[in-house]
Amino acid sequence: MTERNIHVQPASGLAVEDQDIEVVERKGIGHPDTICDGIAETVSRALAQTYIDRFGTVLHYNTDETQLVAGTAAPAYGGGEVLEPIYILVVGRATKKFDGERIPAESIALRAARDYLDEQFPHLDLGSDVIVDVQFGEGSGDLQTVFGEEAAIPMANDTSYGVGHAPLTETEQIVRNTEQKLTGEYAESNPVVGQDVKVMGKREGDHIDVTVAVAMVDEHVPDLDAYKTAVSDVRAFVTDLAEEYTDRDVTVHVNTADDYDAESIYLTTTGTSAEQGDDGSVGRGNRANGLITPNRPMSMEATSGKNPVNHIGKIYNLLSTEIAQSVANEVDGIRQVQMRLLSQIGSPIDEPHVADATVVTEDGVAVGDVEADIQATIDDELADVTDITRQVIEGDLSTF
Amino acid sequence: MTERNIHVQPASGLAVEDQDIEVVERKGIGHPDTICDGIAETVSRALAQTYIDRFGTVLHYNTDETQLVAGTAAPAYGGGEVLEPIYILVVGRATKKFDGERIPAESIALRAARDYLDEQFPHLDLGSDVIVDVQFGEGSGDLQTVFGEEAAIPMANDTSYGVGHAPLTETEQIVRNTEQKLTGEYAESNPVVGQDVKVMGKREGDHIDVTVAVAMVDEHVPDLDAYKTAVSDVRAFVTDLAEEYTDRDVTVHVNTADDYDAESIYLTTTGTSAEQGDDGSVGRGNRANGLITPNRPMSMEATSGKNPVNHIGKIYNLLSTEIAQSVANEVDGIRQVQMRLLSQIGSPIDEPHVADATVVTEDGVAVGDVEADIQATIDDELADVTDITRQVIEGDLSTF
Amino acid sequence: MTERNIHVQPASGLAVEDQDIEVVERKGIGHPDTICDGIAETVSRALAQTYIDRFGTVLHYNTDETQLVAGTAAPAYGGGEVLEPIYILVVGRATKKFDGERIPAESIALRAARDYLDEQFPHLDLGSDVIVDVQFGEGSGDLQTVFGEEAAIPMANDTSYGVGHAPLTETEQIVRNTEQKLTGEYAESNPVVGQDVKVMGKREGDHIDVTVAVAMVDEHVPDLDAYKTAVSDVRAFVTDLAEEYTDRDVTVHVNTADDYDAESIYLTTTGTSAEQGDDGSVGRGNRANGLITPNRPMSMEATSGKNPVNHIGKIYNLLSTEIAQSVANEVDGIRQVQMRLLSQIGSPIDEPHVADATVVTEDGVAVGDVEADIQATIDDELADVTDITRQVIEGDLSTF
Amino acid sequence: MTERNIHVQPASGLAVEDQDIEVVERKGIGHPDTICDGIAETVSRALAQTYIDRFGTVLHYNTDETQLVAGTAAPAYGGGEVLEPIYILVVGRATKKFDGERIPAESIALRAARDYLDEQFPHLDLGSDVIVDVQFGEGSGDLQTVFGEEAAIPMANDTSYGVGHAPLTETEQIVRNTEQKLTGEYAESNPVVGQDVKVMGKREGDHIDVTVAVAMVDEHVPDLDAYKTAVSDVRAFVTDLAEEYTDRDVTVHVNTADDYDAESIYLTTTGTSAEQGDDGSVGRGNRANGLITPNRPMSMEATSGKNPVNHIGKIYNLLSTEIAQSVANEVDGIRQVQMRLLSQIGSPIDEPHVADATVVTEDGVAVGDVEADIQATIDDELADVTDITRQVIEGDLSTF
Repeated sequence: MTERNIHVQPASGLAVEDQDIEVVERKGIGHPDTICDGIAETVSRALAQTYIDRFGTVLHYNTDETQLVAGTAAPAYGGGEVLEPIYILVVGRATKKFDGERIPAESIALRAARDYLDEQFPHLDLGSDVIVDVQFGEGSGDLQTVFGEEAAIPMANDTSYGVGHAPLTETEQIVRNTEQKLTGEYAESNPVVGQDVKVMGKREGDHIDVTVAVAMVDEHVPDLDAYKTAVSDVRAFVTDLAEEYTDRDVTVHVNTADDYDAESIYLTTTGTSAEQGDDGSVGRGNRANGLITPNRPMSMEATSGKNPVNHIGKIYNLLSTEIAQSVANEVDGIRQVQMRLLSQIGSPIDEPHVADATVVTEDGVAVGDVEADIQATIDDELADVTDITRQVIEGDLSTF
Repeated sequence: MTERNIHVQPASGLAVEDQDIEVVERKGIGHPDTICDGIAETVSRALAQTYIDRFGTVLHYNTDETQLVAGTAAPAYGGGEVLEPIYILVVGRATKKFDGERIPAESIALRAARDYLDEQFPHLDLGSDVIVDVQFGEGSGDLQTVFGEEAAIPMANDTSYGVGHAPLTETEQIVRNTEQKLTGEYAESNPVVGQDVKVMGKREGDHIDVTVAVAMVDEHVPDLDAYKTAVSDVRAFVTDLAEEYTDRDVTVHVNTADDYDAESIYLTTTGTSAEQGDDGSVGRGNRANGLITPNRPMSMEATSGKNPVNHIGKIYNLLSTEIAQSVANEVDGIRQVQMRLLSQIGSPIDEPHVADATVVTEDGVAVGDVEADIQATIDDELADVTDITRQVIEGDLSTF
Repeated sequence: MTERNIHVQPASGLAVEDQDIEVVERKGIGHPDTICDGIAETVSRALAQTYIDRFGTVLHYNTDETQLVAGTAAPAYGGGEVLEPIYILVVGRATKKFDGERIPAESIALRAARDYLDEQFPHLDLGSDVIVDVQFGEGSGDLQTVFGEEAAIPMANDTSYGVGHAPLTETEQIVRNTEQKLTGEYAESNPVVGQDVKVMGKREGDHIDVTVAVAMVDEHVPDLDAYKTAVSDVRAFVTDLAEEYTDRDVTVHVNTADDYDAESIYLTTTGTSAEQGDDGSVGRGNRANGLITPNRPMSMEATSGKNPVNHIGKIYNLLSTEIAQSVANEVDGIRQVQMRLLSQIGSPIDEPHVADATVVTEDGVAVGDVEADIQATIDDELADVTDITRQVIEGDLSTF
Repeated sequence: MTERNIHVQPASGLAVEDQDIEVVERKGIGHPDTICDGIAETVSRALAQTYIDRFGTVLHYNTDETQLVAGTAAPAYGGGEVLEPIYILVVGRATKKFDGERIPAESIALRAARDYLDEQFPHLDLGSDVIVDVQFGEGSGDLQTVFGEEAAIPMANDTSYGVGHAPLTETEQIVRNTEQKLTGEYAESNPVVGQDVKVMGKREGDHIDVTVAVAMVDEHVPDLDAYKTAVSDVRAFVTDLAEEYTDRDVTVHVNTADDYDAESIYLTTTGTSAEQGDDGSVGRGNRANGLITPNRPMSMEATSGKNPVNHIGKIYNLLSTEIAQSVANEVDGIRQVQMRLLSQIGSPIDEPHVADATVVTEDGVAVGDVEADIQATIDDELADVTDITRQVIEGDLSTF
């Protein structure tokens, strides 16, 4: 049925859910590294959309580097102030001239970065708390080709690989949802919670420890008692949330580094530790599925900001995750699937050098029983590879 | 009556109004050099006010350096775009810690600079057209003393001088008012006129040439005809305006470097040439009286951004201009007065090393007739020297 | 014998050497990401040594962020030129004042970074090809404590983990040695080989593909024929080298993206792609053992530049690798060991929350047979944890 | 004989030498403003020479902006250290592509700036004390024309003017020579004298005060006594020097702001106040003749760094000084001549709109007696205007 080089094999070890110790981490949207991921990816989308609007195709660019230099702040009960602004340098290359027309790549990047900060960080004052700088090169001449011509499948630009897995373990679900809900709905109704939320989940056997570090926003913290209340509210919220995902024992720890006696607490003016001492850059935090999972193979690829048309590392990391999810959803009897795609430089990206799925099946199900279904699912997803590009450009697929 | 070292002497030459050739220039508010002057002075005021609000006194700072690196733009009939943002680096030193409290000097500077740009430049999009960066040092430790104690007259911090003159010649009045009205009331009702207006006045005998370069705003220029109309409207406005100040012959030239056949015209997207190729910095344009006057002695001092409490160069340039105006207004029979103040390092600033007035009197008036009045006026103004500081901080006295 | 929480368990899957597909990568010393790693770590060492020299102890600092913005170059047969310099921004925080004495942290960083570039990159002209900038904050006040007091074991500053493994597989050995020898002894006698060498090893069953990308130095490439010779010389060298480490089939590919007909080849002026279009930052490339190993658990930690006294992520990544090596070397019957250390915030770093070794034993050896030996080895290494710090500061332990 | 519009007229006032009060200032080569002037002009020369070498003509460029942000230093007897490096941003525009060839404008600028610092500042350690950054735009397209074609006289690019005078007064000679000899031969044999020497001359009637501020180099100052000796040595040297130029009374003041009791003295590590708190930029200090002369008309033009082929402000400031010198040297009976050149935009630069000389003749000489000689001298110099360009490019004519 297919000529793609697809392998399906049983895993040689235990599913992560069955391993003794599991560690999972997520750096929240306001963590300095994630701020950089978010800016890089937003700038990438803005450029891609501009190229499409103006030329009907995406031109060469790459914006996967952003350096954040922390500021200095003096948080205080009731509201402190930023003393030295955060400095953010957006780095990349872009096609600045095409078909006789010039493209305002740097102005677009500047606006996209500032708009992103404005939308995501309600406690950051863009007029005084942050300096956004941009340095865009032209890129190497021979790479300034046109991508995305009608109906064509791009060629892989590198020898690279992507890896994805599904379904998420209970601990993974808890860690991801904890961050997303805290910085989302919870922060909306509880503005004391800033965007810099870091969640570490550790499961030993059937006990899960969820350690949450939340940057509290000083304007909404009149005194130490209010701070304590905010901490215990978060603890209660996360405890409830965790129980939606597991029947295991869960212990939630919030801001464990605090020392109430010394009044050394995690208070910020802007809701992010970037205001004071914590630098950041792209690709050092969450992988493309939003998590750091030392129990699973991970790619080092910094996907945020990369060009989604032909950057094979970005595409294959996102695609392998999508494939794993499809397999887990659509094929019965799958307990865990890990998908790996290895590109072949110069070949069409829908024909990877190897596409190998490593599966743990449920009791009573042999890999041979489901192999054909898995292969068919993988084959379908690979045939539809350019959909990844579309989703990324439209913002439907997160890279961090 | 006074122990101040005040000299009054007749000028050895002709009044400027009577010289054969007179050249006067003013760089408008949107000229890259003047943008820097404006930012430097605004930042200075914001810091001074913060120090007063928080500590009741002005602490050490100096913000007299701002570097503007021009952007790149593609202006076009009906509205073009900025391709690469203008980069503005605000440089200075400030007291960042006092009495155990930290002062957000850089955040204040950033906000002040951005607010200034926002207010003065309606065609500049702060989100995409300009990057404002700040680098503030702490200054040398031994300078971080407190200024402005109650009732004390500060000591001169340097051997420096200031020079001022009054009244303005007809050509000077025309040049200054042309720029101020064009970028003021005229631009408000004619948004086609940008803020970058440069005026050069040249008088040969009784003929005055006023050469005006106006950055037209492309959004309001649908085509070349509209541009030509805008140019001739400006010419008519300036011609009328000039006649308010002189009975001499006046010829007005607007955007003389245009070449209509080649459609090479002075079109901008933001209303300033800083968008394309023209860098700027503080202190390279207008002197403290808003003009460049090669027929008159000038100080090289960059007054904008300097600390108005004890920077003797700034104070004496502003004060000598004020004194000259007072003398010209209050003493009868004065045709021209030039005031020079030379400081003595370590002495109170109300006791200059020398204060010398050089005067041209009207026919029939001897210098001896008015010497006492002049001395008295100078003496009064010197006694009130700290009023200069107050006016600068409150924004009542422009430095450019 | 020990009270440390040490676990030894059998691996649930196959040793990497026995898996079907293995992928291994190493970014060479001249890859833009590795340049940043190298600078960050060199600056870190220079600061640590300065603090020790001046105060007998290491003070708070962290220099684990460096952003490289690529330049522009025009390589040409016989020698081209750099058109726009590479820009390198060294970011971090450091203690700048201690015990009444000021420490020139930024000057030290600047010199260390420039010296590192000078030593490692013979084709880079420091006077014209590179701009090194430094931005160091003071760090948060409450972290500016003193580290490294006599005999004390520091407390873990975070909840973090490290992971290491041993021994290296054949493919891993080939990849690492290929890069190190090419940029080392080989480049010394063959200056045509630049420092930017990227090696990707892929093993499928018993066939190993080694793909090498070598930035050739144009000064030593008079024409296309010379380039071809240089490529085939590298291929021969790597083929010979690989055979020292394996009996498997090895195919070596060098600069496969070249297109000789179009004369599109991998030519550089400086020996690194940082000269043209490739940006870089810390922690995006090699892990602490010098490799990227998707078949093995990896930590996302950017170890280069971190403070080696108390940064637990850095220490545990280096230490877990050292422990794994000791176990593999000293305990008989071990085929593969993976070591993981999880810290407990606030506890002494020689007492990790968990230290777990996952081992694959040789045929005929049960884990139970070697468990006690493994535990003893781990225990000894943990007791000697501060030796990691010493080795890092003295430059005996690489982090990339 | 000539059709140039040359006017010669008697001065309406006294020669400066005969005025009661005269003030003259020179900022030495190591003053932060002059450092910027020197870099801007050096970079300009390097670019011009490169264009000539490669294309036989000078292409469009302008490098008249350099911003110096002061460092921080801790000078100490016997040798202190720079804590935070001086940051120098070289700004400008240049032609980066011509005739299909790319020009490394930024690399050239970087090298030129670093070489200049290296040559001029023996106490500045380029590896650790200074960061040199470059930002060059492409300039506006329509200005990227070619200059300097064989035998052609360029057209004036602006309405601008230049002013020069000769001969120098005694005070001017003393001020200029004091700085040049102190930072030249004297510093060579007395390395305690740094390059930041500021000289202020004030003449009241027949008494001249020469106030010199010398940045002493700490490495050569073991203690306060050595410092005092260095100060008194400088005083003696300047006193002797002054007597070569005048018979008037001269008092020399050296480092008058020192306070020996408080051991507050002018000690530096690098020989320039740029190491600590004193920022600088181009065009704020010395005029094209190396002096600031408030008794004489001055141009605001920042000549350093401007393109010497067609920047009319630069050319006319240098040329008017040369003409004044020629007139003073070649025509008998001249006591003082002031030369002013006003350009006419679009006309050849050897045909100024007005060239007017204002002269003070010696007793017994009428202006009419020398008018023809003066006109002929001016005419010759104007005919040879392009020689100014040649001298600037070859470094034979200083702009500061």
